[in-house]
Formats: sequence, C-alpha cells, structure tokens
Amino acid sequence: MPTTPHRPLILNATDMATANHIAFGLWRLADPDKPDYTTLRFWTDLAIELEQSGFDALFLTDALGQLDTYTASADPALRTATQTPLDDPLLAVSAMAAVTEQLGFAVTVSATYEHPYLLARKFTTLDHLTDGRIGWNIVTSQLDSAARNLGLERQIPHDERYERAEEFLTVAYKLWEGSWDEGAVLRDRGTGVYADPSRVHAIGHHGRYFSVPGAALSEPSRQRTPVLYQAGTSPRGSLFAARHAEIVFVAGHEPDVLRRNIDRIRVLAREQGREPDDIKFVASALVITDETDAGAEAKLRRYQDAYSIEGALTHFSAITGIDWSEYDIDAPLSYIETDSNRSILASLTTDAPPGSVWTLRRLLAPARGVSYADAVVGSGTTVADRLEKLADETGVDGFNLSAAVAHESYRDIADHVIPVLRDRGRIRRPASATASLREKLFETTEPHIGSRHPASRYRNAFTGLPSAAPRPVAAS
Amino acid sequence: MPTTPHRPLILNATDMATANHIAFGLWRLADPDKPDYTTLRFWTDLAIELEQSGFDALFLTDALGQLDTYTASADPALRTATQTPLDDPLLAVSAMAAVTEQLGFAVTVSATYEHPYLLARKFTTLDHLTDGRIGWNIVTSQLDSAARNLGLERQIPHDERYERAEEFLTVAYKLWEGSWDEGAVLRDRGTGVYADPSRVHAIGHHGRYFSVPGAALSEPSRQRTPVLYQAGTSPRGSLFAARHAEIVFVAGHEPDVLRRNIDRIRVLAREQGREPDDIKFVASALVITDETDAGAEAKLRRYQDAYSIEGALTHFSAITGIDWSEYDIDAPLSYIETDSNRSILASLTTDAPPGSVWTLRRLLAPARGVSYADAVVGSGTTVADRLEKLADETGVDGFNLSAAVAHESYRDIADHVIPVLRDRGRIRRPASATASLREKLFETTEPHIGSRHPASRYRNAFTGLPSAAPRPVAAS
Repeated sequence: MPTTPHRPLILNATDMATANHIAFGLWRLADPDKPDYTTLRFWTDLAIELEQSGFDALFLTDALGQLDTYTASADPALRTATQTPLDDPLLAVSAMAAVTEQLGFAVTVSATYEHPYLLARKFTTLDHLTDGRIGWNIVTSQLDSAARNLGLERQIPHDERYERAEEFLTVAYKLWEGSWDEGAVLRDRGTGVYADPSRVHAIGHHGRYFSVPGAALSEPSRQRTPVLYQAGTSPRGSLFAARHAEIVFVAGHEPDVLRRNIDRIRVLAREQGREPDDIKFVASALVITDETDAGAEAKLRRYQDAYSIEGALTHFSAITGIDWSEYDIDAPLSYIETDSNRSILASLTTDAPPGSVWTLRRLLAPARGVSYADAVVGSGTTVADRLEKLADETGVDGFNLSAAVAHESYRDIADHVIPVLRDRGRIRRPASATASLREKLFETTEPHIGSRHPASRYRNAFTGLPSAAPRPVAAS
Repeated sequence: MPTTPHRPLILNATDMATANHIAFGLWRLADPDKPDYTTLRFWTDLAIELEQSGFDALFLTDALGQLDTYTASADPALRTATQTPLDDPLLAVSAMAAVTEQLGFAVTVSATYEHPYLLARKFTTLDHLTDGRIGWNIVTSQLDSAARNLGLERQIPHDERYERAEEFLTVAYKLWEGSWDEGAVLRDRGTGVYADPSRVHAIGHHGRYFSVPGAALSEPSRQRTPVLYQAGTSPRGSLFAARHAEIVFVAGHEPDVLRRNIDRIRVLAREQGREPDDIKFVASALVITDETDAGAEAKLRRYQDAYSIEGALTHFSAITGIDWSEYDIDAPLSYIETDSNRSILASLTTDAPPGSVWTLRRLLAPARGVSYADAVVGSGTTVADRLEKLADETGVDGFNLSAAVAHESYRDIADHVIPVLRDRGRIRRPASATASLREKLFETTEPHIGSRHPASRYRNAFTGLPSAAPRPVAAS
C-alpha cells in the first residue's frame, strides 16, 4: 500500500459517558474541581477544547449493560467505575454542537435494540442539528447483560446479529437516500407548499426482520446518511465493515497486524465493488505525553500506580464472556475459548509473537500501559514520531486517541503532540469552516455518501412511488 | 375547588420539531430570515427567549408517523407541513440546556415503542445534563402509520397500550427510585471506590411485557424520576393520569368542561391515595396578542388568511383515524364514530352546547381561531384577564401556550402578556436560580417525586439485594 508522505492524519478523541472508559481505575486521578461526566459542562468543555486544538471528531462509544461477568456480579464494575454507571452518549451531542463549529461527532448506537425507522430519524435530526457533523459507529452489541435487560434470555447469535444489521442498514439507506428526492422540500411561502409530495416516496420495505412501508419521517439532512464507522475483526464483522463502513477501526498495535487487517478489509471491499480509498482506517492509541520524555515517563508511572487490574479483568471478562476470576492471572494462557465476535481478544492474541507466553497479567497490565496495550509515551516529538511511523508503515489513516485521565490527556495531547504534527503537515485544515464531517474526513466537497457505497443505490430508487404506502385492508 | 387569588400560573411554551405544530398552514408566515426548526439555532434562540421572558418550561410534543389518514395519503401533510416532516424532540434538549439555567423541558416520548431499560437511561442522562430540569410527557402513541412502520400490522388496542404502559412505568420507577440507594455513589478517590456495590440493587423485574432483571445502568440524577406529564381524557387515560401524572393536560376550552375534567381526575387521584395538590392541571391556549386589542385582531385576520383547512383536516383525520375527505365539511355532524382514545375529538364534542349543530368547518376552522378552538386574542391586558379568569374559575394551575407562528408568537406573549401577569403576581419567581423543574412547579425544595406517588414505593425497596441479577443457567 503506497502512502503519501505527510498526508494529514485523522485525529479522533475517544470517550464514553462514564467515569472511566478504557484506562481502568484512572478516574481517581481526574481533577476533583472539574465537572464530571454527568454534567453538561464536562461535555461542552471537552468539545471546545478538542475543536480548538485540532481534533477532527469526538468518538463516543457505548454499551447497553453493566459489566457483570467477572465474579458473576456487577460489584467490581461498580467499585472501579469500569464503564459502569453509564449514560446515553447521543443526548449530549447537540450541546457540544452548540459550542463548536467544525468538530465532528461519531456516536455508537447498537443496531440490535433499536428500530431502523426511529434510529434513522435520530441520526437525521442530529445531522440537522450539527449541520452535517454526525457519524454513526454501527455496533451489534455483545453484552449478555444488555440482552437480558432488554428482554432476551441471551444474545442473538453473532452471525444472526449481523444478518439483522444488514437489513437494518438497508432500511436506513432507503429512508436516508431514497425516500425524499433532492429538491422535494420547497418551503414555498407564496403557494403554501412545504414539500412536493410527488418527490417523497414510501419505501415499501418488507423484509425478514423489519417492515417499514412508509416514507422517512424527517426531511433530508446535509449528509443524508451519517458518516458510517465500524470495527470489524471477526470474519463476518470484517465483511460487514468492508461493505458498509467509511471509517474502519482496525485492531492491533503491531504494524504487521495492523497492515494485515487493513489489507484484508481492502480486499473484501474491492470484492464488494468499492475502491481502496473509499475506506479510511483508524487505529487506537492511548497517548501519555508531557514537555519531555522524562516528564511523560513520570506520568506513566503515576498512572500505573492508580491502574486497576480489577477494572481490567472486569472489562475483559465482559467482552470475552468468560469469568476470569477463576484463572490465575500469572499462569500461561495456552488456550482461550471464545467465539468469533470477541474482537479485542482476537486482536490481542494475533499480536502475540509465535511461541511467546502470554498471561492475563501481560494482556491486561502491560509493562508500559494503563489499558490493553502499551501506551505511546513521550514528549510531543517522540509521540508524533511514533504515530507518523505507524501510519506510514501500515497505511492507517489516523488514530482514535484514548484518554488516560479525562480532559487532562487531551489537554496534554493538544499542548505537546498536535503542535508537532501541525508543523509536519499532519493536521487537517478543512477547506471551509463549515465543511461536513464527510467532506472533512475524505477531503472532498461532497457531503453525500460515495457512489460505490451500497447506500447510494437507493438514490432515486423509488421515483414514481407514492408518499405513503397503501394501508393494509382491515379484516372484515 | 377554592382557588388562592393571585397564585402564580404555570406557563409552558409548546412546540414540535416540525415546521408547523398546531396552527395549520401558518409556517408560511415565519420570518424567512430566521433559522428554521431543522437548525440548532432555532432551538437555542427559542430557549433563551423563553427563559428570559419568564416561561417555566418548553413542552415538546411528538408523533411517530406521517399523518396519512386524510385522503389515504401523506400528500396533504407534506404539502401543508402538517406535523410532517418531523424530527426527534429529545435530541435538541441538551443544546437548549447549555444556553439556559432555569427553563424546564418536558418531552413527549411514547411508552409503546421504547424499551424501559433504555428509556430510563435516556431520561436519567437528560436529568443529569439539565441538572434536574427534565420532564417526560408519557404517551402511548395513537397513529396507525407509526404502528405500521414500527413493525406492527396495526395499533395495539387502546386499553392494552395502557396496560403495557403501566408495566413500563413500574420498571422505570424501580430503576429510577429503587435500584441505586441514596449515597451509593462515593467517588472516593483515596480508596478508589466509585460506587458502593452493597447500595446498588438489581430490580429483578419479570412481568407480562418486560423482563428487566438488572440494576439501572446510570447513576441517579437530581430528580431521579423526571417530572411526569400526561394528557388523559378517555376513561382509561384519566385513570392512568390520576395514578401517574404530576402535571395533567386537561382538554376543553369552556370553563365548565375544564372544571369537570379536573374534578374527575382529582376524584380518581384520591382513590389512588394521592392528594388534590399532588397534581397540577394545565390547559392549552393559543394566544394572539399585540400592543392593542385592535392590533391583535388585525393579526388574527392575517393569520386566518394563511390558515390551512386542508392541514386541519389532515391532522383531525390522523388523530381520529377517520378519512374526513369523504365528508361534506359544512354538513351537520350528527354522529361521529370514534374509539375511546380519541381525546381531542371527545373534548371538542363535549364542549358543544346541547342542541348545537356542529360541522367539520366549525370544529376545524373556528370563527376566531387558527387551530381547533378560538384563540385568546387581544392586548396583553385582555389576554391576561382571560387567562386569569379561566384559571380562577376552573382551578387550572396554568397553561400550555401554543404558537401561531414559531418564535413570533412567544415573542409577542413575552412583550405583551407576561409583563401584565408579572405585575399581578402571576409569574413564578423560583426560590433559587438552580431549582429543579419539580421544585419550581410544585414550589417545594424537594427535587424527588412525592411520597404519595406510586414511584415512591420503590425507594429502598430492593435493599439487601445484589447489584446484578443471578444469570440464567445455560441449558446443557
């Protein structure tokens, strides 16, 4: 994969509406005088800071249940604040949009527990309110605890969740791209005609999982389809990402693993009729930085002192579906039973050099990390060097940066890393201050989804069809 | 019902995330230079204006389908922008909260198409983000078009919707009031303990419609249970309101009808163990006002010229479930077939003096109105007199004011009516600038729901129970 030197990197900040996202236990170090995640100020301050410092977007992740696999209880999650308690990430977006102009928002919403007719309206509404700055990170939900509290005895099987998600997206694409033609909204005050009904179409969808006969409830937004994000490492997940995602989160921290994952998804994408540049790849990194390398190292040690291995075990148990409290954390891991959707575990183990001996401790408390992998630690120059090298070696287009300590870490990145990246031409300068998220990420002037994406096939697909579906005839 | 003279009135502004809420066709008169309902600015400007002028809350209504009953098509709704297209009302709330300090937000969400575990989290999140300024208008959805697009062939029968809503609320109350004890969140940075697991409880709910075994995903918010709003006119709806609502929208525009509806719900509430003052009653009014009576009358005429009877027929057909295009709008209405949930129709017909001849035109294009009833028209003094008289004669505690023309109408009310009401001691002055919505509406210093409300019986109801429900044993 040839790479352009000095191409700008995509920089997302990552957070979750909880005390502690992925640097387990480090909520303790957050400044007690700063507003916490339950407050509006936390989110508006964060958004302002990210925009001012040059981040492209805030990526918000989510889960729909407590992490209650470890010790078969929610106690460890509650004690260590490991992604529990957890608020809804969609609801703070409009406040953050109100205090920013360019920052994008990529929000995780499960396609498993929502209905496409209503979810389509939510994203259209957010695309309206942000004027085209919204993205959707499509997940299919992996927590058994979510399934139980949402009325299922256990998870829908992994591959069936993807089948259902495929149909979910088809419905959403029909509503976003096909239901309202360009120019359907006239807003003609003189004649009193708001929308031209001949250009609004019922989509007549009757599938295996969903029946959505009518037209989209909302009028089209600037991007129509939000920018689509997806993480896929399992075979089914990779295919799904190759077909639907515009931004793919690739797992792995070693250059070889990253490149292999990227190449695999590019091959799959081509088989789906898409071109290599239709997808941007983003890798995750937790950065610990300071004025100097020594300062950053000292910070790493301070963070590691507060790190909670109990929190890590709580999270790892939840995502693998295995209660690891029954295992010796220092015993060699010779065999790990898991199913194909356990992407983080899979990516961690594929990072392992052949013949190496892995233990739970090595997985969950890496020598230089406060999460699943070693952090990128050092001065702004050191960190920028590492990120650039990784990008150039693997073809990755950018990074999802995670905070060790909320706000503080992004402030550090803004102070130390971004100025170096900017000097090197690695920070995007959007063509206009009012570019949509898609225009910014793909450096185009087209806010709509690309013509090789499957959503685009529903453009003008319903021309000639009426604005409402024929109603079912009542049984007499 | 004795009334206290000069008690302050509850003043809500009413809107919907659409071009045209209830003054059909009047979107044409909105200032084309002002931002429209799809923009963030529309909502933040509105919120700032409402707060500055003394409104207590913005009430946002919603529907989940296009209005496609009239002419068996969505064409009239699209043409006249009659509540179609329509965005999600929940998503602009945090932006409005970011630009205000006191204004409350009462948002309509259907208990028919949401899951209580996720909806509970949404309202807790909004109560967090607004610092206790959120209310929930509980509806059970009446549009057949919503049911069809959300996967049902037709509506769940009316009374069963209420049965399901009863259980929905029970689950939500358990999550909001009982799952997390007071003091469960420690945020102890020294010991690293975020929440005390012994004070977080799985609710173990297994009912007819929902199974929610676990604990609430969010930590408690300031009000815990949002302020509960409900409109109920049908026998089943009135009972539901008497049991659950803190604010009841009473239908009817004639004093006798209003008083009768209020008294009926108070009797029912008492049978449920609640006291008369546990519920506040709010009536709807569309106000057209100006500097002078003559100015207001001229404005009424201008509005009536833009009024769309087609829009009114579109809305009325949708809410009654009858395609009125087949009827002569000037023929006497001798018999209207409807079912018990068609509350607006019921209230309109109960307003009819005995022996009077009603026609569709009289219902939908009243002599001095731009909606279902005559507007309250006049100078600030005239309007204030009318509202005060209605409140004192009926025992109603305040009003849901509707706009004829978005922004313009609330600006007019702020300029002309509110100063008069303020001089007369009728506008609330909250005890503190940071009072919760419940404290403001009930003039208390207690943000939590009252002890006679059924939600309160779940306080401390799960003490001693573990933080997570026992997991089902997998079949071997």
